[in-house]
Amino acid sequence: MVAQNAYESFVGRIKDIDTAHQIESLLGWDQETYMPRRAAKDRANQIALIAGIAHERLISEEVGSLLEELERNGADDDPVVATNVRETRWRYDRAVKLPTDLVKTIARTSTLAKATWAGARKESDFSRFAPHLVELLDLKRQVAEHIGYDGEPYDALMDEYEPGAQAADVQVVFDRVKAELVPLVAAIKDAPRRPDTTILTRTCPVAGQAAFDRRVAEALGFDFEAGRIDVSTHPFCSGRGPHDVRLTTRYDEHYMPMSLFGTMHEAGHGLYEQGLDPEHIGTPMGDAVSLGIHESQSRLWENQVGRGRMFWNHYYPALQAEFPSLADVPLDDFYFAINTVRPSFIRVEADEVTYGLHIMLRFDLERRMISGTLAVNDIPEAWNTGMQELFGITPPDDARGCLQDIHWSMGTFGYFPTYALGNLYAAQFFAAARRALPDLDQQIAAGRTAPLLQWLRENIHRHGQRYRAHELVKVVTGAELSHEPFIAYLNAKFRPLYGI
Amino acid sequence: MVAQNAYESFVGRIKDIDTAHQIESLLGWDQETYMPRRAAKDRANQIALIAGIAHERLISEEVGSLLEELERNGADDDPVVATNVRETRWRYDRAVKLPTDLVKTIARTSTLAKATWAGARKESDFSRFAPHLVELLDLKRQVAEHIGYDGEPYDALMDEYEPGAQAADVQVVFDRVKAELVPLVAAIKDAPRRPDTTILTRTCPVAGQAAFDRRVAEALGFDFEAGRIDVSTHPFCSGRGPHDVRLTTRYDEHYMPMSLFGTMHEAGHGLYEQGLDPEHIGTPMGDAVSLGIHESQSRLWENQVGRGRMFWNHYYPALQAEFPSLADVPLDDFYFAINTVRPSFIRVEADEVTYGLHIMLRFDLERRMISGTLAVNDIPEAWNTGMQELFGITPPDDARGCLQDIHWSMGTFGYFPTYALGNLYAAQFFAAARRALPDLDQQIAAGRTAPLLQWLRENIHRHGQRYRAHELVKVVTGAELSHEPFIAYLNAKFRPLYGI
Repeated sequence: MVAQNAYESFVGRIKDIDTAHQIESLLGWDQETYMPRRAAKDRANQIALIAGIAHERLISEEVGSLLEELERNGADDDPVVATNVRETRWRYDRAVKLPTDLVKTIARTSTLAKATWAGARKESDFSRFAPHLVELLDLKRQVAEHIGYDGEPYDALMDEYEPGAQAADVQVVFDRVKAELVPLVAAIKDAPRRPDTTILTRTCPVAGQAAFDRRVAEALGFDFEAGRIDVSTHPFCSGRGPHDVRLTTRYDEHYMPMSLFGTMHEAGHGLYEQGLDPEHIGTPMGDAVSLGIHESQSRLWENQVGRGRMFWNHYYPALQAEFPSLADVPLDDFYFAINTVRPSFIRVEADEVTYGLHIMLRFDLERRMISGTLAVNDIPEAWNTGMQELFGITPPDDARGCLQDIHWSMGTFGYFPTYALGNLYAAQFFAAARRALPDLDQQIAAGRTAPLLQWLRENIHRHGQRYRAHELVKVVTGAELSHEPFIAYLNAKFRPLYGI
Repeated sequence: MVAQNAYESFVGRIKDIDTAHQIESLLGWDQETYMPRRAAKDRANQIALIAGIAHERLISEEVGSLLEELERNGADDDPVVATNVRETRWRYDRAVKLPTDLVKTIARTSTLAKATWAGARKESDFSRFAPHLVELLDLKRQVAEHIGYDGEPYDALMDEYEPGAQAADVQVVFDRVKAELVPLVAAIKDAPRRPDTTILTRTCPVAGQAAFDRRVAEALGFDFEAGRIDVSTHPFCSGRGPHDVRLTTRYDEHYMPMSLFGTMHEAGHGLYEQGLDPEHIGTPMGDAVSLGIHESQSRLWENQVGRGRMFWNHYYPALQAEFPSLADVPLDDFYFAINTVRPSFIRVEADEVTYGLHIMLRFDLERRMISGTLAVNDIPEAWNTGMQELFGITPPDDARGCLQDIHWSMGTFGYFPTYALGNLYAAQFFAAARRALPDLDQQIAAGRTAPLLQWLRENIHRHGQRYRAHELVKVVTGAELSHEPFIAYLNAKFRPLYGI
């Protein structure tokens, strides 16, 4: 039995820390959306200050002794208490190893690096960004050494985003996926049928895209009284807890799918955040499990739902009504076009089949960058070599190569693999949802996605961090994480589409 | 001679506190512009957290002993050091008297009250807002008692916004202004000429207003790389320091002056913030003097410049080009219309002559609210009685009466008088600028406001808090604050206009 006042005092403290993280999240969102250019340096100081405060409060003596007291008194009687104590202990143990100065330096350095990256990408000038990357790699290697690891330094970093994951294990799964993807990509390359993708470049006014995207997000269940959509260079979903979830997207009048699927993707993240239990806001029981699980939600709504034939059965007439330029395009042609598979430069625009290969490239480079076997100046060449090996193409410039993603400028090495894990989780969850909801396809075909959302809420969102990712998959699907549902999903979808 | 490392350590600490205030400012800006409705409660906790941190850091033992050390060692050799020590001492002495819990409670209570006020105003339902007001008055009376005062509790509150000002002294100045305004208003009421104000209700599309307002703000010198304009219910300028200054405005397709003069007003505040010395950012030497001085800058750009005949000499053709609905309106008619004088319900839409009377009403009610002689439930009636006495009109509802302003929901009692003081400062400063720049009128008539901005920067903005308001007026204009330049300005402008 846990002393009630010790637990209350503990919850008060971790909620305060979460409030600091909420502030940090807003500062980051604003930086990417509305912040005036010249405020970048002040913003770096603001983020460093609040990150330092959150860190100091987490590693405080009070949190340490409260954790000990709660653990001593058997915190595991109640699953809520047990979860909050267990996961806070994990965060505490990580944090207590990191000097506050290092945390603040990383926050400040990455805020400035992010601003420089945006300019460097615009001008495709890797050399402008390189010194920041050198600095961030050095700082993150220090983090890895402070945290400690069994396998390699990279494990200590990836653990922040996917608790418990090890690079060597991830490599095994990725190798299995790759072994299946490569022949599928080759078969598609030689397929007798090809989609006409030029239909996707037909003019769709930005205002219409914004209106349609919003309508879709709302129909999926995204609550605009507890969230919003804005524009940023790099789409993201920012938010902590269910009451303030902010998506971003970007528009191209001549490539409507970018904003549409971008919005569905970020709305998938947003639905997870909005589905967290408000009763437990600010504690691990009201927080997302891992980035891999988070990504499973975004990919599921973007791909399994949004790029599915059933979804467009219902939505295609509305899309045509919004964009007369698509009036003469049959649904089947549109559906084929949005599911085209081809080697491409940009990860966020990659199709479902090749997407994983983009991640595997980054995963490989990151492990070498962190271990020190790949020097920063050699990254552009290593990137291009990797692209040639995996896709048989070479980016025309670094903007479409190693500068395309924001992640390294944020110092978030170890983050990328969670995207590929998310694809695997998504396929496995969606297969389980199909078994649980036998009429799921008909529901989606009629524009009703509420039963699916309800199932995700009950089976995934509402648990918060009660289960870790590998346990959650077992609880929800009855099996360990496997590459098989993902590969089965791809084969079932793309083989008939391409007639192979 | 001050020990260099003590001063450096001191500056480091007060800059950190300023960083916390910058964060608080962004949280407030976001609440009024983009925050989803359901995030209000979380936002209150966020603001309370950061306000508490800023407060605790200010009243820390370290700041206390550094102040003592710097004072002991003769901080007044260097005006920069002297200013930073003197003004921090003033803030410290105020803050140290306030329990951190009270500061956090006020931050949280006012954040929630602000959200309720917005809804209450929309539905013109004072009873919804009243309990919040009771609570805030109680909290602010506690503040006044903790701070202490010579005259009345209200002094302790007003002192936060206009350091050194006393209610009784302000009353004397206000009485002098009122004695001059009343006959002027009466004369205008009986004047032989009246402007045709219906021309201002002609349709001006919102997109055109936004474009024109932005062009004007830019031409006045507002730097959009260090600031922005957004939309909010109640226009404001938010920002700390010169790199991130955020204005808001609101648009009415059928009343273009609202956004235009609102923007010029807030841009005036913004030009002050952007003119602060970047070298001293985060310290009193890089901070605004007082709200009265701040308001002098906004009123000067809005009124002395923006409602002046010279300004429109240059800008009217551009306005007509933007809004064809004004094509047949002669400049003189437009100029007369934007300078109409008449009793009105809404302070922020009041003309230059009657504006001060709106403030005097609020000043009077606030003093009675704080002293306890006016109960919250009696405010609507007292408001309406005051309106009848001052203007001979009664608001049709509380939305256009005592609910119109955001200030009480923020607990900022003592803030309103700074608006009227700002008008007096503005007139006195503008008269001084005219003396210093003999061709000022011709410059403005040619669309060149840069010399005026330059003069304001050198004479006011760059000093930061080197002088307190009453000293600054003397340094800049050679005389004490007086109602005379303001009354002279009004007479010179409005008597010929109305033919009286």
